[in-house]
Formats: sequence, C-alpha cells, structure tokens
Amino acid sequence: MDTPTAAILVIGDEILSGKTPEANARFLIAALRNLGIKLRRIVVVPDEIPEIAQTLRELATAFTYVFTSGGVGPTHDDVTLKGICQAFDTQLERQPEIEAMLREYLGPQLQESHLRMADVPQGATLIYQPDLRWPVMCYQNVYILPGIPELFRQNFLAIQERFRTTAFCLQQIYTLEDEFMIAEQLHQLAANHPTVNIGSYPSLNRQEYRVKITLESKDEPAVMAALADLQSLLNPELIVSLPEVTEN
Amino acid sequence: MDTPTAAILVIGDEILSGKTPEANARFLIAALRNLGIKLRRIVVVPDEIPEIAQTLRELATAFTYVFTSGGVGPTHDDVTLKGICQAFDTQLERQPEIEAMLREYLGPQLQESHLRMADVPQGATLIYQPDLRWPVMCYQNVYILPGIPELFRQNFLAIQERFRTTAFCLQQIYTLEDEFMIAEQLHQLAANHPTVNIGSYPSLNRQEYRVKITLESKDEPAVMAALADLQSLLNPELIVSLPEVTEN
Repeated sequence: MDTPTAAILVIGDEILSGKTPEANARFLIAALRNLGIKLRRIVVVPDEIPEIAQTLRELATAFTYVFTSGGVGPTHDDVTLKGICQAFDTQLERQPEIEAMLREYLGPQLQESHLRMADVPQGATLIYQPDLRWPVMCYQNVYILPGIPELFRQNFLAIQERFRTTAFCLQQIYTLEDEFMIAEQLHQLAANHPTVNIGSYPSLNRQEYRVKITLESKDEPAVMAALADLQSLLNPELIVSLPEVTEN
Repeated sequence: MDTPTAAILVIGDEILSGKTPEANARFLIAALRNLGIKLRRIVVVPDEIPEIAQTLRELATAFTYVFTSGGVGPTHDDVTLKGICQAFDTQLERQPEIEAMLREYLGPQLQESHLRMADVPQGATLIYQPDLRWPVMCYQNVYILPGIPELFRQNFLAIQERFRTTAFCLQQIYTLEDEFMIAEQLHQLAANHPTVNIGSYPSLNRQEYRVKITLESKDEPAVMAALADLQSLLNPELIVSLPEVTEN
C-alpha cells in the first residue's frame, strides 16, 4: 500500500503578519509523523476566499488528506467555509443539529447573525466524538479544524486514530566530519539505497557534532542495510554517539 | 505605490518530517513586517525538483519578492538550484569567482565534486556584502538563502535594507466581551473601514482578555479613525488596557 500523504493549509492574516506565532502546523507535523502519514506540503494563506479556494483545490487533488487550520469562527475574517464552497463548487446550508446546539449554547443572547456558525458546505460530513462539544467538519478529504491551538489539538487528537498507518523507521548518525568531505559518500549511499530517504544536516553552533545524517523509510530492513553501509563509509573515529539531540 | 508583497518557500524534508523545527520562516515573518512588506504566502515543500520548480514559478509570478530557505549545500538532497533552473528554463553554469573562493577555502582537500557548489543558474545575480563570506544569490525576484538558521539570518540581514518601504501602523484593543457578542459590530466596522485590516482573535486560556482586535494599515489616519469607531462600539467597561501581551 502506498504511504498516505497529507498537506496542511493554515489560514490566517495573523500568522503572515506576525501577530500570532504559528502553532498548529508545528503540532501537526509531529502528530502526522507519529501516525505514519507523509506530510508533503504546508501552505499559509491570508483570510481571502479566492486564495483559500485555489489552494484547497490543488491540495485536495494532490494529497490523501488535507487539514485546514483557522477561519471558522463567527467574525467577518472567518472565511474558510466560503473558501471550501468556492473550491468545490458547493454552497453553505444551515445545519439543523448545529443550529439547535447554538441555540442551546447561547440561549437568550443568540442573535440571528450567530446562526451563520450553523452554515456548513452542502456535502460536508460532521464527525461527532464523545469528548468534543462541537463536531469536526470534513469535506471529502479535507478536515476543517479551528485556529485556536487548544481546540485544534483537541479536535485532531479526537479523530486521529482513523488516519494511523504503518510507522516510519528512522535511524540517525552524528559525525564530526565536515559535510563537504562526506558529500560524495552520501551521494553514493543515496544511489545504492533508493527506497531510503537520506538526509544530511550540518550544524554550525554545536560542539557535539558537525553533521547529522538521517536514514528513514517504512521498510525497516532497508533502513538497517543503509545504516550498515553508512557506518562503513564514515570515519569511525569521528562518529559520535548521541542518543538524542534536542533541536533549538 | 502598492505595498510590495512577498512569499517564503521553505525547502526541506527535515521540516515536513519533524526532524527539525522550522525557524527561518518564523524569523522572516517578523523581519518582513518590520520592513513594511506584505507577506502573502508561506509554502513548505520536500527536497524534490518538480515540486520546487512548480511552486517557484507560481510564487515568482504572483508576488514582488520570493525568499527561499534551504537546499543549497553540497549534498545529494540539496536541489534548490536545480529547481530554479527547471522553474525558469535555465541551466547551471560554473561561476569562476565562486570556484576560486571554494579552491581557496578548501585548499588541498578540494574534490572535483565540491565544485558543484560553484554552479549557479545562468542569469542569476550574486550580491556581495562586506560582512558575508559568500555572496547571496538571486534569480530575478527570487532570493536564495541557506537553510542553516544562523546563515539564513546573517544573509537576510545583510541585504534587507534594499527591501524597506513604508511601515505598517498597528493598533490593538483587548476586551473581555465574548467574540460571539461583538461579531456583528466588527462586521460593521470592517464594512465602514475597507482600507483597514481588522482581525479578531479569541483566547481561551487567558484571564486578562477574551478577544484581541487588531487594526492595521499603512494609512495611519485610517487606522486611528477605525480605532475611534471601535472604541465607541465596544462596552467601555470591558475594554482592557494591556500594553503588550506576549504570545505563547
């Protein structure tokens, strides 16, 4: 089975203008990896319907899953659902169950304009989970999550098991060699192990190592074979044993 | 004059797979804002030439400036310049000045394969700065920056003044009102002040306020007029005086 792929679409002027540090893609990168899903694209766009629609159309066609963050609140700058409608040529319709939940939640304070929170794209699916107050909305392969980080995490974690697949196998080696001096060997290694993803990451400001080399695949024996080859290519005296290096 | 726009293209499997936390877009968001440039898109793609090329073509056409991060080192996974070539239908050619710098830098350790670091896209411009060891490369409106965060910052800061333009004016108001209850007023405010960008950001986990409202434009009088209107629309007893709230 092919590895499922994913894209994240972050919607929000507040991210692009530096008012709010991005937190949801940051969280989802690790969560998707943990589920065995290959994240292939992250896009951040402003709160503008045509930009959202065009990007969504591209991402939904190219990847197995798309996760959107933001733009689903009650104010004028929340236009994600209109973007969904423009992308997939559908329209908003009032969803009676959500309308009932809103009426109960807001009680006498409810204004007619609040009911626009009950308008969902025709054809959307609502995923109810016992631990969530509001359902998670999905349209085809697009999962629509709120921008508030606490809610984003809560909603994703509530539905994540439906996405889980074979885990990745990752091995890393740290060396004190200069990246320039091992570039040729790594090139050869990559050619000999085409199914293993080989990364080379130099560090300027660390004493412990100069290059981190990563080997990754869902095929564990392939990773271990590449690891053995890599160890024989590098100068053993310059390989550093580092169980885990915390990134800054 | 129209506000110049920008896009950031981050190139790197290590970001998408969660091996390295993204730091360069994070830095550039604030730096571009400070320069008065409107950041309109961030895209993260893997180390794959067709993805890089297609995205670059789109971004370079749509925005005033494009800044790329990563993929310019000496190893097999560094394919940004090949992406530039495919995007703009050009090819790599050996650059004698960089070749001479590499020969001097590496001395007797130089291997023939190292000289691929001297291969630059035909038609690229090299920007030399007194405080940089290597020049910054640019192709048309695309500025090509290294992925190592220290070098990314150093290179960008060395060339940033060429991009500076009129500053943004930003005003913010914090209120204890519920976002649901002020959605209608904000909608009206946005309609009355079309040149001001009005954002509404609820917070779930703060005692100090419930919604932050931001007003932003390059037209300072327009921002101040919107601010006066906003103050008259909100319940004055629920406006909170917070000079600066640090985001987490």
